[in-house]
Amino acid sequence: MKPVAVRHIKRADPQVVDAFADVGVATAHEANDRHGLMKPYLRPVYSGCRVSGSAVTILTQPGDNWMLHVAIELCQPGDILVVGCTADNTDGMFGDLLATSAMARGVRALITDTGVRDVADLQEMNFPVWSKRISAKGTVKETLGSVNIPVVCGGEIVNPGDVIVADDDGVACIPRKSAADVLNAARAREANEGAKREKLASGVLGLDMYQMRERLAESGLVYVDSPEDLDA
Amino acid sequence: MKPVAVRHIKRADPQVVDAFADVGVATAHEANDRHGLMKPYLRPVYSGCRVSGSAVTILTQPGDNWMLHVAIELCQPGDILVVGCTADNTDGMFGDLLATSAMARGVRALITDTGVRDVADLQEMNFPVWSKRISAKGTVKETLGSVNIPVVCGGEIVNPGDVIVADDDGVACIPRKSAADVLNAARAREANEGAKREKLASGVLGLDMYQMRERLAESGLVYVDSPEDLDA
Amino acid sequence: MKPVAVRHIKRADPQVVDAFADVGVATAHEANDRHGLMKPYLRPVYSGCRVSGSAVTILTQPGDNWMLHVAIELCQPGDILVVGCTADNTDGMFGDLLATSAMARGVRALITDTGVRDVADLQEMNFPVWSKRISAKGTVKETLGSVNIPVVCGGEIVNPGDVIVADDDGVACIPRKSAADVLNAARAREANEGAKREKLASGVLGLDMYQMRERLAESGLVYVDSPEDLDA
Amino acid sequence: MKPVAVRHIKRADPQVVDAFADVGVATAHEANDRHGLMKPYLRPVYSGCRVSGSAVTILTQPGDNWMLHVAIELCQPGDILVVGCTADNTDGMFGDLLATSAMARGVRALITDTGVRDVADLQEMNFPVWSKRISAKGTVKETLGSVNIPVVCGGEIVNPGDVIVADDDGVACIPRKSAADVLNAARAREANEGAKREKLASGVLGLDMYQMRERLAESGLVYVDSPEDLDA
Amino acid sequence: MKPVAVRHIKRADPQVVDAFADVGVATAHEANDRHGLMKPYLRPVYSGCRVSGSAVTILTQPGDNWMLHVAIELCQPGDILVVGCTADNTDGMFGDLLATSAMARGVRALITDTGVRDVADLQEMNFPVWSKRISAKGTVKETLGSVNIPVVCGGEIVNPGDVIVADDDGVACIPRKSAADVLNAARAREANEGAKREKLASGVLGLDMYQMRERLAESGLVYVDSPEDLDA
Amino acid sequence: MKPVAVRHIKRADPQVVDAFADVGVATAHEANDRHGLMKPYLRPVYSGCRVSGSAVTILTQPGDNWMLHVAIELCQPGDILVVGCTADNTDGMFGDLLATSAMARGVRALITDTGVRDVADLQEMNFPVWSKRISAKGTVKETLGSVNIPVVCGGEIVNPGDVIVADDDGVACIPRKSAADVLNAARAREANEGAKREKLASGVLGLDMYQMRERLAESGLVYVDSPEDLDA
Repeated sequence: MKPVAVRHIKRADPQVVDAFADVGVATAHEANDRHGLMKPYLRPVYSGCRVSGSAVTILTQPGDNWMLHVAIELCQPGDILVVGCTADNTDGMFGDLLATSAMARGVRALITDTGVRDVADLQEMNFPVWSKRISAKGTVKETLGSVNIPVVCGGEIVNPGDVIVADDDGVACIPRKSAADVLNAARAREANEGAKREKLASGVLGLDMYQMRERLAESGLVYVDSPEDLDA
Repeated sequence: MKPVAVRHIKRADPQVVDAFADVGVATAHEANDRHGLMKPYLRPVYSGCRVSGSAVTILTQPGDNWMLHVAIELCQPGDILVVGCTADNTDGMFGDLLATSAMARGVRALITDTGVRDVADLQEMNFPVWSKRISAKGTVKETLGSVNIPVVCGGEIVNPGDVIVADDDGVACIPRKSAADVLNAARAREANEGAKREKLASGVLGLDMYQMRERLAESGLVYVDSPEDLDA
Repeated sequence: MKPVAVRHIKRADPQVVDAFADVGVATAHEANDRHGLMKPYLRPVYSGCRVSGSAVTILTQPGDNWMLHVAIELCQPGDILVVGCTADNTDGMFGDLLATSAMARGVRALITDTGVRDVADLQEMNFPVWSKRISAKGTVKETLGSVNIPVVCGGEIVNPGDVIVADDDGVACIPRKSAADVLNAARAREANEGAKREKLASGVLGLDMYQMRERLAESGLVYVDSPEDLDA
Repeated sequence: MKPVAVRHIKRADPQVVDAFADVGVATAHEANDRHGLMKPYLRPVYSGCRVSGSAVTILTQPGDNWMLHVAIELCQPGDILVVGCTADNTDGMFGDLLATSAMARGVRALITDTGVRDVADLQEMNFPVWSKRISAKGTVKETLGSVNIPVVCGGEIVNPGDVIVADDDGVACIPRKSAADVLNAARAREANEGAKREKLASGVLGLDMYQMRERLAESGLVYVDSPEDLDA
Repeated sequence: MKPVAVRHIKRADPQVVDAFADVGVATAHEANDRHGLMKPYLRPVYSGCRVSGSAVTILTQPGDNWMLHVAIELCQPGDILVVGCTADNTDGMFGDLLATSAMARGVRALITDTGVRDVADLQEMNFPVWSKRISAKGTVKETLGSVNIPVVCGGEIVNPGDVIVADDDGVACIPRKSAADVLNAARAREANEGAKREKLASGVLGLDMYQMRERLAESGLVYVDSPEDLDA
Repeated sequence: MKPVAVRHIKRADPQVVDAFADVGVATAHEANDRHGLMKPYLRPVYSGCRVSGSAVTILTQPGDNWMLHVAIELCQPGDILVVGCTADNTDGMFGDLLATSAMARGVRALITDTGVRDVADLQEMNFPVWSKRISAKGTVKETLGSVNIPVVCGGEIVNPGDVIVADDDGVACIPRKSAADVLNAARAREANEGAKREKLASGVLGLDMYQMRERLAESGLVYVDSPEDLDA
């Protein structure tokens, strides 16, 4: 594949994109039939953020952050930078200067399958980042990658324009085309949860609320009274 | 082994169980002859908690949290859920709904050799969790495991009714039968530490306080004045 | 190699050593031609610290913290303890008692390629620690190591007397002899950054500020208008 | 727990123990209701071995192989040494001398949650070993562990006298008491496999042989003719 | 995303597909502009194989190999099964029975981001497999995935019909559409290598053959005569 | 540190260097007071090699093998290339072409803290390699490193001219200055082992041969007759 930067990508309806921030990652990926969740090694650099946006994707070479500069020009307000790398790499590809530039373009967050640095500054600037590692290691600008092609980040395929949702539980990627449907499914799930929570808080057991007892017995679960009964 | 749930288990004397929270993990496992410490990959989901309780043990299948519902019914106030898994798994087996249910039963904490989710909610609810990973990944309810059999969590054997102690340093498991003795040994260690701390703070060296100089010399430690002496 | 403790080591000019705390890890290691950065698995036990000091180096055996006591006697105010280990080990070699003793000697921080414990106490005591892991596991005092010889910590060679810089981004080691030069280079970099940050904040792109467009084109980056153009 | 060595343990019927070598690990653990399989990081030091035997269990300290000498005296012909460790450790706790001694006692193999060394010699001696790592690192004899207590090896609980089965696929532990039943179940599985293999070799699909088509449809699997249909 | 199986996919020209086996992985991915190489944790189950084929892709759930049966029906002679998983999983999803079935359909190899088992049988059957892990762990058939959709395997996106090349160096994925061009580029590289190898064998240095000396000097490489000159 | 290549380094007496191949890694590092052993993640690319030589050290940048060409010119017959890297990297920095060139200079082996490729060719060429990983990933020649400065490889400091010993158990580094003494100590150890091996083979226990019984009792090891006695 030749290095390429795609200028214009399709994004989902902004209202849909924004609404995902309220939904959160756990519900969003469940509503997406349990697909699209990035691997849990991606962690927030500082906790307490919840964000959604449209993916501008970047494929970088290990130790090289050149393509991040190319990508920022192609961002619109509401975008989230999503960085994949052609090999395992933990270098600090992004820091306070790139964050300054990204914020000036209206970029909402960075998700990167590499390292980041200047994390104290990033927190002070209120720029949310999910990364594989924190590392002060600087990078060069020598080898090309691409912008706005499908990339792998956190073990998931991200297409440019997909909806990214990120919070303290991790990062999910929702396909652009199905974003509205997934949002509806997510809201349906949520509507359901308040009632469940109340019941459980009042002491109703999940066994009863979800009517599990019969299926457990059918599956072969045996209850015994005490550990001594195990050897009998 | 057939799937089984044991209803009634023996627990240690509640006063002994509760007292371990004051002792902390480092002292508890030292007093237990340096045994029972879970591996350090188990980390608190949020820091600042210190808790002790009686283990209700759960063996789950990867990606399946069915047995957690079975276990909660068998809990008493003061219990701590301890989850082992039949294969490496980081899925988010426990979240705000299960925490709500567990708290309604008086459960004090969760220790899990898997992932957890809804971590922002867990912190808000003040429900302490130590886990291998944070992951939004949902789980199914398809395959049976067991409750209140011996399990491996964090590389340690946990028997139902063992005393669990957890704080920012990690998680320790103290055998039920020796819990009272270990508590006494732990308190003796602690009584000793205040005096040591004062001495060290005043500038007395460990070398002198622990009378190490002679043993170091016997073991063959050589002092030289400067790096240049190393090549002489 | 026989176990040895070197009493007197050369340190860099104290003003140079202290000034590195203002510079921070990212800039310090860049100014050192991108050398000397420890691997990113070394993380602060609690965040928000930034410190510099002179390395007193310790080579320990796995599970054995004997040499830490030997090292503390050889410390001066302004020193930082740097611990390497002869095998991978995560045991909690350092806790509140050793921290008390180290602080009494004016030691500023600990960097260790092992585990630490009593982390809640360490934070309360304001003693900064960067470690590979947090672990309550206690250690013995049975096998000798060495003090103030070259060690490997976080994948980097640390010579006694080298300047250590540590903050939320990680830990860097600057050779004693070149510390003053590196400090000057670091300050030059910093002087430069304020202007850059302002420009980027105003919306100037890195592509233009760093004049990257021509080099990108020469390297072969192709811009296309939309994803459909990729298959053409 | 105090250090202890248990002289006499119960073992399963020798004919049952020996028969497991023919069954292999995959079938053995399936017949054991998919329990007892050690984690896949345990690998044979050289391939092509298949062995079964009675577990003599050893709990060691990291970097210390003292207890292996204690254990060998307590072995009988047909035993397999199973080593757990109180902390993660990869040191080479076992080499050609210990293998010589173990073979003189009729020990059949070693399973260790640590490292081993002299691997070229072990292969030449035909002494099978499954370990976490290969490492030349020597060990000391300074700190006690225990022999013939329950240990964790490869993430599984091993009780002394349990049946160990090991081949190129890994290592399984079958509880002593249920060994005969599990063996029968394993043989039943095997009897079944020959016919299946023939059918599949002749081109019959698993979909048909296991009658999966209906259940797949019920579960919601949709067939489409071409990728273009996905976006329709 | 709903579970789906795509019956008919486009494949590259069979002559192109087959020719890649002669080229090997290192040259193939270099000719593909250094893209498409799967991560090196994917290793051959036994060494000495070199194979190419068309990807039939499978997305599985952890611990569940149901979709492999669905995929085998959709294979043609010359295909290679490529398995991605929705979460990290090392279970043995594939063994001698599935290999028998796959070989009956003309499938050439399996590449899987999970575990495999029956590895001694696989070698005897001459069915090549590259996997993340070897594990005897059995799997269930409970949860749907998909067949012939884009998947991530070894950190790379694989589209159904892409060309897979695998040998002892690893696994590469070449996009279907550019396969012929990449093959030509690969052959050009190879034609070049014989002459280089002869020159280097005769003692010509890479420094001279590649004319590196000038560029090294320009980049700032300094030669000194001895280590003593470093401190001067 | 500025990029530098040191032309002339001191090597140990060639007879001493060569003799280490007979000694092997386990004995060599024991004779070196258990120091100098590289971490066990360094594995031979193919097994059955045992080699010793003088270290020519190389510090590379991740993904860049430029310095290997610089180093080969500075090698003498009997040298071993030892590669450290400024960041974690698994790229295939070395393959059949570089091996051809290295063999033409009389280089005996490569030890690298990165990946290698063309492993089938390397085996056919009989060029031994110990590496962190096998990877087909190609590398660029863009950023300078250094040759013949102290590097870290496998977690150990290697100075140019140090003696490298490598076999199936791993890789050890013996300081040049003490090589002759360590060789003598290693031979003394070996002389001792033949007699021990015979005794152990005849059934003498290590407990008796090493007179451990008394020390075990002093240390507190308690023997009990059966598991039932543990609960008494």
